[in-house]
Amino acid sequence: MKCTVTFEPDNVAIRVDRGANLLEVGLAAGVHVNASCGGQGVCGKCRVIIETGDVEGEKTEKVSQEEYDQGWRQACKTFVFSDCTVQIPVESRGLRRLVAAKLDMGRADRKIVALKTRPLAEGWQFDPITFKAHVQLSPPTLGDNVSDLTRLLKGLKQQHGIENVSTDIRCLQTMPKLFRSSDWSVTATLMAAPEPETISSVQGGFPAINLVRLEPGDTSGKNLAVVIDIGTTTVCAELLDLKTGAVMAESAEYNSQAEYGEDVITRIVYAQRPEGKEKLQSLVVSSINQVIDELLEQTGSQKKDISFMAAAGNTTMTHLLLGLETRHIRETPYVPVANFMPLVWASDIGIDVPDCVRLYSFPLVASYVGGDIVSGILGSGVFQKEELTLYVDIGTNGEIVLGNRDWLACAACSMGPAFEGGGIKHGMRADLGAIEGFNINPVTLEPMLVTVGRRRPQGICGSGLISILAELLSACVIDRNGKFVRDLSSERIRPGRFGYEYVVAWAGDSGAGRDIEITEVDIENLIRAKGALFAGCLTLLESMSLSFDALDRIIIAGAFGRYINIEKAKRIGLLPDIPAEKFHFLGNGSLLGSRLVCLSGQMLHEAEGIATMMTNIELSDNPAFMDKYMGALFLPHTDARLFPDVSEYLEANSRMILSGRIPKYDSVL
Amino acid sequence: MKCTVTFEPDNVAIRVDRGANLLEVGLAAGVHVNASCGGQGVCGKCRVIIETGDVEGEKTEKVSQEEYDQGWRQACKTFVFSDCTVQIPVESRGLRRLVAAKLDMGRADRKIVALKTRPLAEGWQFDPITFKAHVQLSPPTLGDNVSDLTRLLKGLKQQHGIENVSTDIRCLQTMPKLFRSSDWSVTATLMAAPEPETISSVQGGFPAINLVRLEPGDTSGKNLAVVIDIGTTTVCAELLDLKTGAVMAESAEYNSQAEYGEDVITRIVYAQRPEGKEKLQSLVVSSINQVIDELLEQTGSQKKDISFMAAAGNTTMTHLLLGLETRHIRETPYVPVANFMPLVWASDIGIDVPDCVRLYSFPLVASYVGGDIVSGILGSGVFQKEELTLYVDIGTNGEIVLGNRDWLACAACSMGPAFEGGGIKHGMRADLGAIEGFNINPVTLEPMLVTVGRRRPQGICGSGLISILAELLSACVIDRNGKFVRDLSSERIRPGRFGYEYVVAWAGDSGAGRDIEITEVDIENLIRAKGALFAGCLTLLESMSLSFDALDRIIIAGAFGRYINIEKAKRIGLLPDIPAEKFHFLGNGSLLGSRLVCLSGQMLHEAEGIATMMTNIELSDNPAFMDKYMGALFLPHTDARLFPDVSEYLEANSRMILSGRIPKYDSVL
Repeated sequence: MKCTVTFEPDNVAIRVDRGANLLEVGLAAGVHVNASCGGQGVCGKCRVIIETGDVEGEKTEKVSQEEYDQGWRQACKTFVFSDCTVQIPVESRGLRRLVAAKLDMGRADRKIVALKTRPLAEGWQFDPITFKAHVQLSPPTLGDNVSDLTRLLKGLKQQHGIENVSTDIRCLQTMPKLFRSSDWSVTATLMAAPEPETISSVQGGFPAINLVRLEPGDTSGKNLAVVIDIGTTTVCAELLDLKTGAVMAESAEYNSQAEYGEDVITRIVYAQRPEGKEKLQSLVVSSINQVIDELLEQTGSQKKDISFMAAAGNTTMTHLLLGLETRHIRETPYVPVANFMPLVWASDIGIDVPDCVRLYSFPLVASYVGGDIVSGILGSGVFQKEELTLYVDIGTNGEIVLGNRDWLACAACSMGPAFEGGGIKHGMRADLGAIEGFNINPVTLEPMLVTVGRRRPQGICGSGLISILAELLSACVIDRNGKFVRDLSSERIRPGRFGYEYVVAWAGDSGAGRDIEITEVDIENLIRAKGALFAGCLTLLESMSLSFDALDRIIIAGAFGRYINIEKAKRIGLLPDIPAEKFHFLGNGSLLGSRLVCLSGQMLHEAEGIATMMTNIELSDNPAFMDKYMGALFLPHTDARLFPDVSEYLEANSRMILSGRIPKYDSVL
Repeated sequence: MKCTVTFEPDNVAIRVDRGANLLEVGLAAGVHVNASCGGQGVCGKCRVIIETGDVEGEKTEKVSQEEYDQGWRQACKTFVFSDCTVQIPVESRGLRRLVAAKLDMGRADRKIVALKTRPLAEGWQFDPITFKAHVQLSPPTLGDNVSDLTRLLKGLKQQHGIENVSTDIRCLQTMPKLFRSSDWSVTATLMAAPEPETISSVQGGFPAINLVRLEPGDTSGKNLAVVIDIGTTTVCAELLDLKTGAVMAESAEYNSQAEYGEDVITRIVYAQRPEGKEKLQSLVVSSINQVIDELLEQTGSQKKDISFMAAAGNTTMTHLLLGLETRHIRETPYVPVANFMPLVWASDIGIDVPDCVRLYSFPLVASYVGGDIVSGILGSGVFQKEELTLYVDIGTNGEIVLGNRDWLACAACSMGPAFEGGGIKHGMRADLGAIEGFNINPVTLEPMLVTVGRRRPQGICGSGLISILAELLSACVIDRNGKFVRDLSSERIRPGRFGYEYVVAWAGDSGAGRDIEITEVDIENLIRAKGALFAGCLTLLESMSLSFDALDRIIIAGAFGRYINIEKAKRIGLLPDIPAEKFHFLGNGSLLGSRLVCLSGQMLHEAEGIATMMTNIELSDNPAFMDKYMGALFLPHTDARLFPDVSEYLEANSRMILSGRIPKYDSVL
């Protein structure tokens, strides 16, 4: 259910989900509402008046009973439940938005609902990789004393039409006792993938179905799969109901490997130490076990009902999970051990699931384009569509895929950890208290902060960094080189140990007990990171003799993309300057694809096909890339023709601000 | 090379292999030469005169120099190397053979050469299950930085035309180091069976070839397989060269499980004890490891060159090897866990071979018709031929297969261990010193003994028991019920603790330091055993509405059949009374079939097909079988029409002996 929220006096409207937080709605609409505490309700600056409509919000200390009755609320404590009109009083707002015309309703809408992602791949049949069949067998007699296995296979054929079933020794070892203790009522878990650890019992044909588990009684109602995205930083997982295809729960934990290095390079270095590889394998496995436990606990499910796992990770994570050598991923010429991984027994590598569970690892493309990307391309359906798509996954490495149903090319560029908070003075992950939304009043230079969970600010996460950089740029606080303009009269701008800095949150408002600043050094790091990604995209396009204009759409994948503000990302030159409606958010594309391979045998084969089809363009030691990288170390870019709309906006903004800043600033005070 | 040996004055000729032992030749020809010490040369009774021809034989103490120069030799110490004529002097021989007309040259010939068995299955292509391919890869560069696996797969395709190769995690774990330490010159071992532990890396198709091992350099010249016959008593093995198909060595050891029971029933009982199953598995594995070590030592081969194993055993042995529950094999209604066994990693069950080695276990038919029988049917080619064949494997269980290329039926009957020496006072296995050949002088009742290895007699093995029973019967020492005729004047016949008995060897001649007798109780046990086998054959035939006349051939399989005397086995009713030329010896049929599955993928599928095709006729609780069994407890059978030739022979013999025994006996003395 959607509601339209109209902010006055700016007359800016936005459609949002019912129940949305009003401060976040304002941020998404591009309306400035002063807010210093991130949304926790303690600064009391974000007071608004609800003129019409249905909202929920308790009376707070910052609002008197009389005011409350008149419609005054703290925006950060208010949630909208119908179309409504919200007046921003003069003391809460900054000036009227300077360039309101640029607001893109579609984008804002999309941003708010970005959580609701779904597989975009189409045309797949529900055909889970493992399925269950209950059979009631008749006990053996002297007149019918075929082996237990033969009896089972007959039952599967007669009662379910299932043929060509192979088995494995583990099933046979438990079979006789199980049949006899369950009155010959048993449930077989079958796996539809090519799975013979056996020679066919059927003349001439190889089994297409493998018996992986037997359980007493009828357990056919319970069949679960776990899909895992093995990130360098975070291990995310979903519990799937293979009977319905539904996602029952989600869970995420930090990858425990992180204590041996933030990025893949330091992990690879650690893995070269004696027992290093084994240690890192056991650490990621412990994280996987933890998320599985959480999934089960959330849903009250039982571990024994899990029958399959699919995992996608970057090349290094996939290698470490399977115990493979990683050193050649790091050393030139950057060679992984394998692109296609065999199915393994999950319990063989230490994952605490039943013996029968097989783990599918997504195929890799190259040392820096891994299974998470293949999975994302699968989940997003890029490989099926005629439209030319640029798929971008932003992280320590930026991974980029270009193509459509006819061809796919990819590249990876090293962005460094800046957009994940690494190497940034107050950088942090998108945990509670991380500043993720930021507007600036271009006259007062006062901020509007929204934090994750609307807690007091602790630091700044990736989407916050993009917003801050973009807002400082459009408010002419920093110049196109990312340097602070030195003559601004705001106490928030000051010289610091790392060059000039802007105080995003004062110690009094912050949850960190000290000022939270963004420094010139931080900004340099961010420019290098965005420059690498943009140069990567440009190099990939040019290697196919294409330009950004040719793109039908850009898909932003990854948790990072979830809260990113496209306009602001374009403004700093992180994303190309193409119409906002061409941008799509995928969420965790890796999980989407993993889900699909569990639910459709055809999709599993598509995944293999995608990895085979994808051409990797090597950017390291690529002179074209280096040229483009140097050109991208500017906000948004040295070549204004690449960013026509952004350049025009920044010019217009800059003219207005430089002509009128001081008087307006005074008038507000 | 063959020679013809003619014995005078009987004028009996036989074709034998060059180098054959003269005493054994006489035994095979049905000529009686007194011999009490089994062939060791100590009794000095088997002196003969070489009239013409080339023999080798040292002078012995029992022959003077003058006699030696005249051609006198001890038969047991003499070997023939050309056609020759041998005179049996009056003191060495018994009487002239009474019924010489019955001698079958073909049979005798075949008996002597029975060792030279070969697969009788035809029309198979040499297409070993594992094969090696050496590839020289080019090292990766930035311009060609595909994964190590992809590089290998490209090499296999370009250099050998091998495609659709899947892999497993173990290969990937060693791959990077191996490639780089071997200058990218490596040898891949590939397995042609359906082996994906992986999802295909090839769109649309499943891999038919699995990469199982990588080795540095070019090792493609060395590729070995081990085939194993897992007998209840003995574990036999052969080392195969998969490059040529040649058998490089043979080896055999007792099955170490024997200390926990002689037969499968006691093993099953033991397996039901705590850890009993695991103990028995580790014992048979230790025997397997021993025979493998012997095979390698004999040939100077290296364990690392082994790439595949195939094993055949009866149902219990196969279950115990793979760690499967056996109790239901023993308990009515006699149900095995499975008929078709998955391939397992040999090292997973404790076999000390390289990690990559897979073990194929022959499929089973029923609780008492196992993989050794399926393997024998494969090796003998019964499943390919139009001729109606009865395949008989004699052991503690008699296993019988009837059929041809269109159909196969089988049955198993419990014979007990009598023919393996169990439950027989002086019974023993066919070890050194076991009496395996026996003739009797029907007048003097003096024996002609030949032992295994021509050592002093230690006891009596299966073929000896058949001979003794048959000879006592035709000499009218025992009657058709197996009871001793009480009025015979020979000191060799005497009452004993177990009824009357015949002294086969006096203490002075024996290696056991005491008399070796056969008792009436022994004979009862033997009659029960042979009765069970014969009744089984008859029941199986009748269940198919056939009689013995319909048989085109009978194949005698197993080590036991190797030295069996067909005429004598027919005489006691163990084998049916059909023409001797219809009998064929297969030797260890189980090893023959196992060899074939290693050398031909097609034969591996045939093995599965044979087990699927074979109908088991249950004999336990089968009234038709019980009737026939009761009728068979007679020598040769209560129904003389079933044994027309044997009956006629025994009648004629009996008439001659009863009419003339005493005078002739006296005349010799």
